[in-house]
Amino acid sequence: MVRVKLVGAGGYGGIGLVELLYRHPEAKLSVLVDVQGVGQPLSEMWPYLQGYCDMTIVAPDSKEATATAVDVTFFATPDGAGQLAAPAEIAAGRRVVDYSGDYRFNSTELYAEYARRINRDPVHQAPDLLKESVYGLTELHRSEIKKARVVGNPGCFAMSCICGLAPAVKHKLIDLAGIVCDCKTGVSGGGKKPAAGFHYPERYDNASAYRLAGHQHVMEIERELSDLAGGPVSVTFTPQVIPMVRGILSTLYGRLAQGVTQERVLEAYREAYRDEAFIKIKSASEPVGTSDVRGSNRAILTIACDERTGMFRVVSHIDNLVKGQAGSALQNMNVMFGLPETLGLNLPPAHP
Amino acid sequence: MVRVKLVGAGGYGGIGLVELLYRHPEAKLSVLVDVQGVGQPLSEMWPYLQGYCDMTIVAPDSKEATATAVDVTFFATPDGAGQLAAPAEIAAGRRVVDYSGDYRFNSTELYAEYARRINRDPVHQAPDLLKESVYGLTELHRSEIKKARVVGNPGCFAMSCICGLAPAVKHKLIDLAGIVCDCKTGVSGGGKKPAAGFHYPERYDNASAYRLAGHQHVMEIERELSDLAGGPVSVTFTPQVIPMVRGILSTLYGRLAQGVTQERVLEAYREAYRDEAFIKIKSASEPVGTSDVRGSNRAILTIACDERTGMFRVVSHIDNLVKGQAGSALQNMNVMFGLPETLGLNLPPAHP
Amino acid sequence: MVRVKLVGAGGYGGIGLVELLYRHPEAKLSVLVDVQGVGQPLSEMWPYLQGYCDMTIVAPDSKEATATAVDVTFFATPDGAGQLAAPAEIAAGRRVVDYSGDYRFNSTELYAEYARRINRDPVHQAPDLLKESVYGLTELHRSEIKKARVVGNPGCFAMSCICGLAPAVKHKLIDLAGIVCDCKTGVSGGGKKPAAGFHYPERYDNASAYRLAGHQHVMEIERELSDLAGGPVSVTFTPQVIPMVRGILSTLYGRLAQGVTQERVLEAYREAYRDEAFIKIKSASEPVGTSDVRGSNRAILTIACDERTGMFRVVSHIDNLVKGQAGSALQNMNVMFGLPETLGLNLPPAHP
Amino acid sequence: MVRVKLVGAGGYGGIGLVELLYRHPEAKLSVLVDVQGVGQPLSEMWPYLQGYCDMTIVAPDSKEATATAVDVTFFATPDGAGQLAAPAEIAAGRRVVDYSGDYRFNSTELYAEYARRINRDPVHQAPDLLKESVYGLTELHRSEIKKARVVGNPGCFAMSCICGLAPAVKHKLIDLAGIVCDCKTGVSGGGKKPAAGFHYPERYDNASAYRLAGHQHVMEIERELSDLAGGPVSVTFTPQVIPMVRGILSTLYGRLAQGVTQERVLEAYREAYRDEAFIKIKSASEPVGTSDVRGSNRAILTIACDERTGMFRVVSHIDNLVKGQAGSALQNMNVMFGLPETLGLNLPPAHP
Repeated sequence: MVRVKLVGAGGYGGIGLVELLYRHPEAKLSVLVDVQGVGQPLSEMWPYLQGYCDMTIVAPDSKEATATAVDVTFFATPDGAGQLAAPAEIAAGRRVVDYSGDYRFNSTELYAEYARRINRDPVHQAPDLLKESVYGLTELHRSEIKKARVVGNPGCFAMSCICGLAPAVKHKLIDLAGIVCDCKTGVSGGGKKPAAGFHYPERYDNASAYRLAGHQHVMEIERELSDLAGGPVSVTFTPQVIPMVRGILSTLYGRLAQGVTQERVLEAYREAYRDEAFIKIKSASEPVGTSDVRGSNRAILTIACDERTGMFRVVSHIDNLVKGQAGSALQNMNVMFGLPETLGLNLPPAHP
Repeated sequence: MVRVKLVGAGGYGGIGLVELLYRHPEAKLSVLVDVQGVGQPLSEMWPYLQGYCDMTIVAPDSKEATATAVDVTFFATPDGAGQLAAPAEIAAGRRVVDYSGDYRFNSTELYAEYARRINRDPVHQAPDLLKESVYGLTELHRSEIKKARVVGNPGCFAMSCICGLAPAVKHKLIDLAGIVCDCKTGVSGGGKKPAAGFHYPERYDNASAYRLAGHQHVMEIERELSDLAGGPVSVTFTPQVIPMVRGILSTLYGRLAQGVTQERVLEAYREAYRDEAFIKIKSASEPVGTSDVRGSNRAILTIACDERTGMFRVVSHIDNLVKGQAGSALQNMNVMFGLPETLGLNLPPAHP
Repeated sequence: MVRVKLVGAGGYGGIGLVELLYRHPEAKLSVLVDVQGVGQPLSEMWPYLQGYCDMTIVAPDSKEATATAVDVTFFATPDGAGQLAAPAEIAAGRRVVDYSGDYRFNSTELYAEYARRINRDPVHQAPDLLKESVYGLTELHRSEIKKARVVGNPGCFAMSCICGLAPAVKHKLIDLAGIVCDCKTGVSGGGKKPAAGFHYPERYDNASAYRLAGHQHVMEIERELSDLAGGPVSVTFTPQVIPMVRGILSTLYGRLAQGVTQERVLEAYREAYRDEAFIKIKSASEPVGTSDVRGSNRAILTIACDERTGMFRVVSHIDNLVKGQAGSALQNMNVMFGLPETLGLNLPPAHP
Repeated sequence: MVRVKLVGAGGYGGIGLVELLYRHPEAKLSVLVDVQGVGQPLSEMWPYLQGYCDMTIVAPDSKEATATAVDVTFFATPDGAGQLAAPAEIAAGRRVVDYSGDYRFNSTELYAEYARRINRDPVHQAPDLLKESVYGLTELHRSEIKKARVVGNPGCFAMSCICGLAPAVKHKLIDLAGIVCDCKTGVSGGGKKPAAGFHYPERYDNASAYRLAGHQHVMEIERELSDLAGGPVSVTFTPQVIPMVRGILSTLYGRLAQGVTQERVLEAYREAYRDEAFIKIKSASEPVGTSDVRGSNRAILTIACDERTGMFRVVSHIDNLVKGQAGSALQNMNVMFGLPETLGLNLPPAHP
């Protein structure tokens, strides 16, 4: 039984993990840490969890938080928290999965560039840990994750884009320049904190692009794709919010390499993901929507190149809160502890 | 292991049961029957179920449908189907749970009255079976359900109203005349068939009352409440559709009996439902919404009488597709087969 | 040309009036006052208004706010603002329409009771003005509004309930005790300020009752209905929020007086509102939804008594931001200045 | 006063025009034609129009439809209707605006290609009229529209894309190959007919791409852009439906020509649309959403090139039912009859 400490209990990322752990036969929540709601049961903040998780939230420096025996600590926290707190977890013999950007870049230079984009201190607080950290996109880094002490879980947009582009860049099916990621997210991607742009009357019949001048997620995407391609990949990334709650629909474009057809791309993707439990490949004629992955840890990739114009196109569908966050984190935990990768992650979602 | 035959596989009621059975440790789907989609896997009709239920749909009169060894047959079918088909199931030694109105009234007279209201033939096709049928509101009829061969599962509106009113009428906390059930349902209550009133652009910012001249569900409510009260109860029932998908919010009113206070009502409800796993009681000051029961088999009852005006008021929250349909049906199956009542029904839903 | 000063420019009540005034042939906006956004054009806060209202917002005590020549001042402000600021407007020869509860009760005692319910100072700051104020439900107080210096515009819930109950209590078609107002509002009723309960992910598939322990709107309703009935009327009021943006659906119940039929009620309502441009009467068999009044100044009342149970029932549909707020305020202005009552208020809304 | 005949009265395109004409000071509806609802007032089909349009719908071959004196006929009809019926209108001295693809291509060859894509007879039924028809994108074809007898109104997707790309291709700011139009539409774009994909429970939290194998709208876009560029332009077009009702958000990509900067593109767009009342240009740092054009005839273009990757990017926002359909049609009518172009089209929409 893997014993879990969850830091950042009350956000969507935290409760998503609580939900998944409840169903997991080989892992259990041992301690819940947050700076808000300390002393309250989690179910007071989130009444729908009554009877499922009535565990009391404890403060980060409380004895319960520091001394409870656990095997793995999840940081479901914003940028900055994990780099300060993870070293102590590691020192205590625990392994770490961090949801934020703190451990997505295993070099201080790359991290500094990332930090500047999000207006944070470019100096990482745990540079040694950073260097050994592993990027938590299980399908690409499974063997390293197995042994990793610290995993930096991918951003939700990055997850949808990298899954959708990896085989194309790896097998040189497309030009490495001029790739476009047109990404639409549901509102839950913005977290639980109320804001004008997520206020129901302002959002209900409204789609909008944002942060057009630069978005931090593009760095992870370019780094991963460049590694796969063995050369620099550049990506134009457009984040957009649409009036739904769960789901990311990323439409990915590039120029098809000479002679590459839709059929060839389809084959390459089927081959690349043949053994992956959580990635499904569809051709252009099969109807798919984000509701087909809602509540599940799946990514569905629709291969729909436009041969007439010579353009590669893949539509990537994930649930931003599952494959894009808590589900992917749990998938990594399963790998880290030698459990079957789908354990606790293969239940059908509720529809509609 | 309880072996299940599901008739009416492709509707919301059918897939809801498929989802729940997948998680159930002591029951399994043995055969899927429908008149639509015969020969296809269910997951072709519902791609989100790929890998969870790829069982092929068979026709009602196929050998697979009639000869597969099963212990219980669920009719997730509209009115009329179960009364024709259930006798053969019983004859084959199977027990039956029917979602429709076919077995909610265990007398031919009551059924005839109900059938007239919904413009159907008032002559029941299986009068003997009708007479032995049990109304499937587990919390009220647990011991009969245990032994029942045929259970008529409650309507979703009726479920929300009867749970919310039962202790009040049983203990004479309110007048038996002049009870009002003001019920708001999410759109999934209308099923999966497209219709003008459920067309996204017509429904998205629109709330409406319907069938004001008479709604079939009131009969079940009055019958159950009259039985509990030991005298005639009359109910004014207003069905309304609001632009959400899952959930019923029923606000229930009556005149408080002489001397009855909010405190007294609250105590009576807490007492009445003390041992019920799926019914939660809240006082007026605790915030609740239908999202707190979304995806779960729970009913939450907020006791909020208005002592100033002498009015009893209870707000009843359920998920129309779970406690209002498939969850309640499975709860009955658990009871019928001597399984723990919460088996397969106690997983936390996904939020938001 | 009626010259208008609008105080509280940036809220939904303010922009609603700006939209309506733009279309009005005999009134024009002369000055925009707010404490937020001072010095900015309104269209910077609300880009959709670019080219329609680029007027600069001025501070309440600025020379523009105090010295611009206007005929009427609208306070689209929360409780408390109008009672402090209205006397100076009156002294300057302007007439006043206030959206809040500040001038809905023309006695200091009633106001004190109201203020206590909303946790405000029970001492009104402009008691003389209060005494001469007129309740701005045009259909009931047209002749007094014509001459009024200060009009207290009704609350949106109160508007829907009083319109729907007035003929019934006036003509003693129902008992004066035991009346129930079950009211569902769209989220815009909560204003433009982000809050947890109006955060898109928390509200999108969620209906909830709130402030069950007492809501300020019931006082207006009871006062108006008691005046009409010539005796005390008591009302149980349940406010509920549903996941839509514009619209109130109020379902109103009472006990039918001896011998009163649906037909009789329908006739009485048709007669009572025969000459009203903004009130439409429907019978139970005509389908109506809040989308039929969305964007318009209409109230649609569906008369749907339940003769079987002896219950009166009317379903009242309004747009909370038009007939429930800015539209009704403009209707009052038209009356106050001798303009045709429908001027600027009779344009078809956009559908869907 | 321009007298209008509207064919196809009951669809969203028809009622959109009815709403706009009601506000128009120099045009009026003279006759309403449809094949559904004949003999009924339009307001029976659409109760929200009561008092605004109670005109009776007449059959296409009725005397009212053929003999009423009108100046212009709008075909708010699907493909195929206008090509059969327009010649008689022209013969009767009327001018024609057609919403469908029937008159968007003024050559029989182009039309044939278009017709094949939508599985229709490639032989146009009014080839002579087709040849003289003018593409109704007012901003690009104003002078020809002025004199046109037949105007083929643009498709809604095409409108958003062409407005957003025209200056770029005309001034060679981007490569003419490899252009991407990533388009998201609200559900009203699919019309008023209920369908599984637009059923509220299936659409509410679901975004999806469709017709990936080829979409008819790309032809108009490529034809117009090629004409502007003076050479062949190829476009990859991705239609997507998102859970909102009104609005199109089109994100347009291309490769920036050598040396072209964001600043240069911004200037070119400001210059190109300087005198256009309905097109607003924004830079990347100004927040915009489709709600800023909702209910209005505006297009807002956000210029947001990615200089780092050398990519041109424009985000185009329109209301698919106004600038994308009825508003644009009315704008054309204004031009055809020498009226001010903004007449009847410059009222502020209702927000939120």
